[in-house]
Amino acid sequence: MFEIISLKNGLENVQGFFCGGLNCGLRPNTEQGDLAFIRSEVPCLVTATYTTNKFCAAPIKHAKRYGEIFESDFVLINAKNANAMTGKKGVEDIEEILGSLPIKALNPLMSSTGVIGYRLPKDKIINGIKRFDFNSKDSNALATSIMTTDKFKKELCFKVTLEDGSSFTIAAVAKGAGMINPAMATMLCFIATDAKVPKEDIRELLVEAVNDSFNKISVDGDTSTNDTVLLMSNGLSGAYDKEAFRVALKRVTFELAMMILRDGEGANKVVAFEVIGAKNDEEAKRAAVNLSNSLLVKTALFGADPNWGRIASTIGASEIECNEEKLVIYYDDLIVYSKEYPELDKEREEKAYKIMNQDSFKIKCDLGLGEGRYIAYGCDLSYEYVKINAEYRT
Amino acid sequence: MFEIISLKNGLENVQGFFCGGLNCGLRPNTEQGDLAFIRSEVPCLVTATYTTNKFCAAPIKHAKRYGEIFESDFVLINAKNANAMTGKKGVEDIEEILGSLPIKALNPLMSSTGVIGYRLPKDKIINGIKRFDFNSKDSNALATSIMTTDKFKKELCFKVTLEDGSSFTIAAVAKGAGMINPAMATMLCFIATDAKVPKEDIRELLVEAVNDSFNKISVDGDTSTNDTVLLMSNGLSGAYDKEAFRVALKRVTFELAMMILRDGEGANKVVAFEVIGAKNDEEAKRAAVNLSNSLLVKTALFGADPNWGRIASTIGASEIECNEEKLVIYYDDLIVYSKEYPELDKEREEKAYKIMNQDSFKIKCDLGLGEGRYIAYGCDLSYEYVKINAEYRT
Repeated sequence: MFEIISLKNGLENVQGFFCGGLNCGLRPNTEQGDLAFIRSEVPCLVTATYTTNKFCAAPIKHAKRYGEIFESDFVLINAKNANAMTGKKGVEDIEEILGSLPIKALNPLMSSTGVIGYRLPKDKIINGIKRFDFNSKDSNALATSIMTTDKFKKELCFKVTLEDGSSFTIAAVAKGAGMINPAMATMLCFIATDAKVPKEDIRELLVEAVNDSFNKISVDGDTSTNDTVLLMSNGLSGAYDKEAFRVALKRVTFELAMMILRDGEGANKVVAFEVIGAKNDEEAKRAAVNLSNSLLVKTALFGADPNWGRIASTIGASEIECNEEKLVIYYDDLIVYSKEYPELDKEREEKAYKIMNQDSFKIKCDLGLGEGRYIAYGCDLSYEYVKINAEYRT
Repeated sequence: MFEIISLKNGLENVQGFFCGGLNCGLRPNTEQGDLAFIRSEVPCLVTATYTTNKFCAAPIKHAKRYGEIFESDFVLINAKNANAMTGKKGVEDIEEILGSLPIKALNPLMSSTGVIGYRLPKDKIINGIKRFDFNSKDSNALATSIMTTDKFKKELCFKVTLEDGSSFTIAAVAKGAGMINPAMATMLCFIATDAKVPKEDIRELLVEAVNDSFNKISVDGDTSTNDTVLLMSNGLSGAYDKEAFRVALKRVTFELAMMILRDGEGANKVVAFEVIGAKNDEEAKRAAVNLSNSLLVKTALFGADPNWGRIASTIGASEIECNEEKLVIYYDDLIVYSKEYPELDKEREEKAYKIMNQDSFKIKCDLGLGEGRYIAYGCDLSYEYVKINAEYRT
């Protein structure tokens, strides 16, 4: 047994971690930061998952040198410039910037988000670094400095108390990109914990948590050059329990993933797309992911139009085994399509409309063929232009 | 040698074909038609390509009974109701409607576009049929009746004169759906010719023409339940030459495909995405199609933002072989990225901006790896919401 409670703010709650952010001139005409750091007073065990984009950015090339699991105590993060498609020079720039740190750092990392194809403004960043207070615990400055088109900062923290009375803290900060916010698809997340996560568990747990959260949300079908989820464990609490840490880490990543979805520009609701009864999990996944990415489906969600035909059409186009006679589509618990209910009558249509007007709801498709299942998460697509199409049926 | 000239309007130019359209009450409060027919006074050799959606609509199930190549002399088309996901009843409704024709028809066909999941309003359609003048040659009524959210009608006609002085006519009418018009992704196209196309050529030529046109344009990644391209040859001109017909048919389908792209709501330009130097054609196709569908790329096109990073990022995420050092990206003939030009300077950026402000232009990516190549066609994504993102970089 263990207990999880939510704490205010983010990384500042975690023993031995320091963080901060400031404006070094990358983001002009504003006081909002554009350069941030995360530091641990003792070396951390670190692991990370990165974008699968073949043109991964320089910071990822640089970080991958350390291997899948390594030790580090420092991360520098900048907004406005992705340092991607910058070749070897991009990596050399990182080395030069990190080489200028006025403090000792073990295997320091850098992470970037912003426009592709431009070298980092090294001088601005190096001058910025000089102004950091490396003993600050300002998670608000960290969280706001790494934002791009995010409307709100994304940070959270949990305290986990184990059965023996020992406890650890896990906190995270993220920046996102909604499907309807296609200018910046990069998603960064930094997780810090004082739990004493052992080497044999750390990667398995992070990969599992990322697969069940960030890998299940629909951005815009594009995979950025810079996506990174980094987990740093400094062990200072001395506490650890694999199951408790697994649950806490999954909660951290899932809640941040939902925040990212909710922050899609103009997004009004988060929708879970569950496909069950598929021939296998792979086919269920293909259909669920297609549903979460379909513009047809997203516009219907925005208009709260119970036009299940778009759901059916997207499944039918997913190159999976499916059968019109066996398909059943639910909005929450309401059947909107099955062989027995070929047309949505007034009463059921009104119920569906109410369900669709909730803050979040589930669309479930039972293909009636096998045991395959998957859930993907998406959001609606709003904006004036969509209204025209969302109201098509009326 | 042969000569191709453009004629005004559409199907009315083709010997032995009749066509028309009227409002039978499916499209309320307007004089615009919603029911149309195409008829030939003699039996036609017919072939068609249909959607690959597993939940294909009732009219497609009905038409597929005739096989890949068959004879027919009549097509009925309605807008506003797709007759999809309507089960066996949907097919029975078609039989009943076509059974009510007041004229003799050989293997009559029906084609539908509109909302999914509702039975056809049979009585309205049957009453509408009674009001048709089956000897009319009103291609304007045909072309406007089958429109859904199309802003302009899509019809064209070519006269082809062969070396021996004989000639034939080929005409077509279509309705479309732009990527940025996700409410109605259905695309219908009906091609009529008095050329004497032999049975051994007709399918090969149509499949080739469709692959080089409609299958290369980006709609919204969704494949509708109703997509149909139908070719009817009544042979009344007596004329035929395989090469001349191939060229004319390809021109018909390609020009209609471009009209469909241009009619995407708010679309301002048509862009060709050419990928060359890929490991093989399959990989080139995957990258080109991804480019034409990418929201990131489409928003940059709208903003005329020479943000080639989005092009690179999309290629890198396409799960194909690629190498940052070998990639070259062109806008028309201008290199915007290569290893030698890592940053776009002011002068080249201005040139790129001018290119992107044209009505149409080409984005070419040379992967520098092999002989694989493919072209896909897409359009920009405009609307207020996009402006925000298109201007991200500034």
